[in-house]
Amino acid sequence: MSEQSPLELAEGDPFGPHNLPYGVFSTPDRPADRRVGVRIGDHVLDAGAAAHALGSPYAALLAKPSLNPLLAAGRTAWRDVRRALTAWVTVPAHRPVVEPLLHPLSDVELHLPYEVADYVDFYASEHHATNVGQIFRPDGAALTPNWKHLPIGYHGRSGTIVVSGTEVARPQGQRKAPSDAAPVFGPSVKLDIEAEVGFVVGTPSSLGSRVGVGGFDDHVFGLFLLNDWSARDIQAWEYVPLGPFLGKSFATSVSAWVTPLEALAAARVSPPARDFPLLPYLDDSAEEVPGGFDLRITVSINGTVVAEPPFASMYWTAAQQLAHMTVNGASLRTGDVYGSGTVSGPERDQRGSLLELTWNGTEPLELPTGKRAFLEDGDEVTLTAWAPGAHGVRVGLGEVRGRITPSR
Amino acid sequence: MSEQSPLELAEGDPFGPHNLPYGVFSTPDRPADRRVGVRIGDHVLDAGAAAHALGSPYAALLAKPSLNPLLAAGRTAWRDVRRALTAWVTVPAHRPVVEPLLHPLSDVELHLPYEVADYVDFYASEHHATNVGQIFRPDGAALTPNWKHLPIGYHGRSGTIVVSGTEVARPQGQRKAPSDAAPVFGPSVKLDIEAEVGFVVGTPSSLGSRVGVGGFDDHVFGLFLLNDWSARDIQAWEYVPLGPFLGKSFATSVSAWVTPLEALAAARVSPPARDFPLLPYLDDSAEEVPGGFDLRITVSINGTVVAEPPFASMYWTAAQQLAHMTVNGASLRTGDVYGSGTVSGPERDQRGSLLELTWNGTEPLELPTGKRAFLEDGDEVTLTAWAPGAHGVRVGLGEVRGRITPSR
Repeated sequence: MSEQSPLELAEGDPFGPHNLPYGVFSTPDRPADRRVGVRIGDHVLDAGAAAHALGSPYAALLAKPSLNPLLAAGRTAWRDVRRALTAWVTVPAHRPVVEPLLHPLSDVELHLPYEVADYVDFYASEHHATNVGQIFRPDGAALTPNWKHLPIGYHGRSGTIVVSGTEVARPQGQRKAPSDAAPVFGPSVKLDIEAEVGFVVGTPSSLGSRVGVGGFDDHVFGLFLLNDWSARDIQAWEYVPLGPFLGKSFATSVSAWVTPLEALAAARVSPPARDFPLLPYLDDSAEEVPGGFDLRITVSINGTVVAEPPFASMYWTAAQQLAHMTVNGASLRTGDVYGSGTVSGPERDQRGSLLELTWNGTEPLELPTGKRAFLEDGDEVTLTAWAPGAHGVRVGLGEVRGRITPSR
Repeated sequence: MSEQSPLELAEGDPFGPHNLPYGVFSTPDRPADRRVGVRIGDHVLDAGAAAHALGSPYAALLAKPSLNPLLAAGRTAWRDVRRALTAWVTVPAHRPVVEPLLHPLSDVELHLPYEVADYVDFYASEHHATNVGQIFRPDGAALTPNWKHLPIGYHGRSGTIVVSGTEVARPQGQRKAPSDAAPVFGPSVKLDIEAEVGFVVGTPSSLGSRVGVGGFDDHVFGLFLLNDWSARDIQAWEYVPLGPFLGKSFATSVSAWVTPLEALAAARVSPPARDFPLLPYLDDSAEEVPGGFDLRITVSINGTVVAEPPFASMYWTAAQQLAHMTVNGASLRTGDVYGSGTVSGPERDQRGSLLELTWNGTEPLELPTGKRAFLEDGDEVTLTAWAPGAHGVRVGLGEVRGRITPSR
């Protein structure tokens, strides 16, 4: 009796041939040889080797240590490569070539899949921004006056974006409670997460030009889960007037898998109704493809689900964020990454940060591993997500996992 | 009568052998061949070609299209290369080899000399921060409570750092005066400059580690002038609560020349006395080499000097900024750039921005080219600077020049 092929997946496998996310992997026998892999079920296909063996013109683009050459190749190449990959993992005649190039996920090491150019983080959930406003500025309006007119964002640190699985050392820094006479220094006592969705730019744009909301699918290659680790105490003391800096810059974790936008066609949804008319450059009401994505995120701490933030509830879409980011003529580079901002839905169990879930620590979570106001050393946070696909089959997003280690 | 050698410079030439700043250039005959050049007088020495011709072990490091390999080589290599260069341009026996490798500055194209990794901008002049606070928050304290406890900074856009001489298109964006009912969109009407000094990191550091104030000279290769173009109207509407974004991200101009820290030994000065005791990680009182630099900056608009900001007046030093930036464990990469923040001295004619010089446009400058509240299309801004060197000879910094073009 022959063994079952790794390409024969259970019905409804969220990593079936309808998904095919991209990553970069290495194998224990060739640890320095990082190369593009495509996930199928619980296996990774060595995409460059498959392309070479099957005579694909894209072999050179895929036998690389990062996704950047593929990202830079543009939308037509993205579509062609995906079409070829789909054939390689579904057409039985290819099996003798493809099967030997599959590696069990448990046997490979996954790496940061792209070289990050610039990193921008947005603040696009109305529920999140309202919660944070109520917590930090209880005497003022929860939303700042600009919030519904433009997607607020800021640049983050590209060099500390790390792949899922990387341990995160508790950051040290200055903090000062309003009651303290002077700032104190030490390990953060309010270490938090932010459950976000990240987007990676493929096609660049030139300095002085703009990308409209309709340019999203031409410029953005795919999306992934992102955990924007945040030290709330450091952030609170530093962020006025120039924004978050050391409270965020110690680490940002991203999934090892980038889901191409093409795999998410069935998940496109319209964003919530807008309360204010938008300036023309942000107006997406005439777009054929809606800008939102119906992604169902799950946040777990030490294996216990603590929140299920719905990405479809985001007020600002990734297409609007791209249009805003470039409206002043700022150029895009291949490898630019931007985060959606914390995803929080209207319900309490849909909040994407501990700041909100515990209301700044005043209402701790009761976990099997103990009470949690913020993260403790040894805690492991995992983000997972899925999106509706065609024929009711889910599209799985790659997880983001990170464990907190003590300050060094 | 033989022509004078380009290596025989006038006494006191600010770009003599005591300076030797690094850049990247190309020549009209080989426009695609970018390579490291060293400025001597009004000439550029093809450093890689000289190293090759003279049998230097550093030839491979210098025959590159960016300074990054040299930056990554570390402090011992920086010192050795500088020592070799000094010999090549001063020892008469080398002239037959070196002279043919000199190109008049007017014959070469200068390029962005490094690949920028992350870009951070600080806010380190007490006079600037006080002026801005009085202008933007007239009813509150001029300085925020954190200002004298930590060097405030934020991440900027690496991908829009451009070399001196690059034209800057007036950015468009949203603005809303307090009296406006709703935001309007259009070209910025408050386009400004910020005269700053930039620093480029050579030696990287690892994630989770810290660089102390004493690590500055080991990690930072050199400094240069930087113009942080700022659209004040866009910035004012967007910056609460997460800081500057589109008001800054359209362009940041840097000099084509990086002055190595070694050339500035005579310009090291102690920063102003501190009003508050500093936390130990920022305390520089026991450092042997003082953290300040006595750089005399000149800001010109269309050839008229409008300000002479003194860098020695900065409250926070670049060494303290580096220590702060990494105290949370954030890593450094070769090519990280950070800006000092606008340099403004205590006097009116020492202010490094038009916001301050014209008090937010209420006291326009009278220039030969007309009245200026903020920049007009066609205006050209030039920053130059010098530092005291040994034996009273000035060390010239490379200029930063940029002309405003109309919005596209």
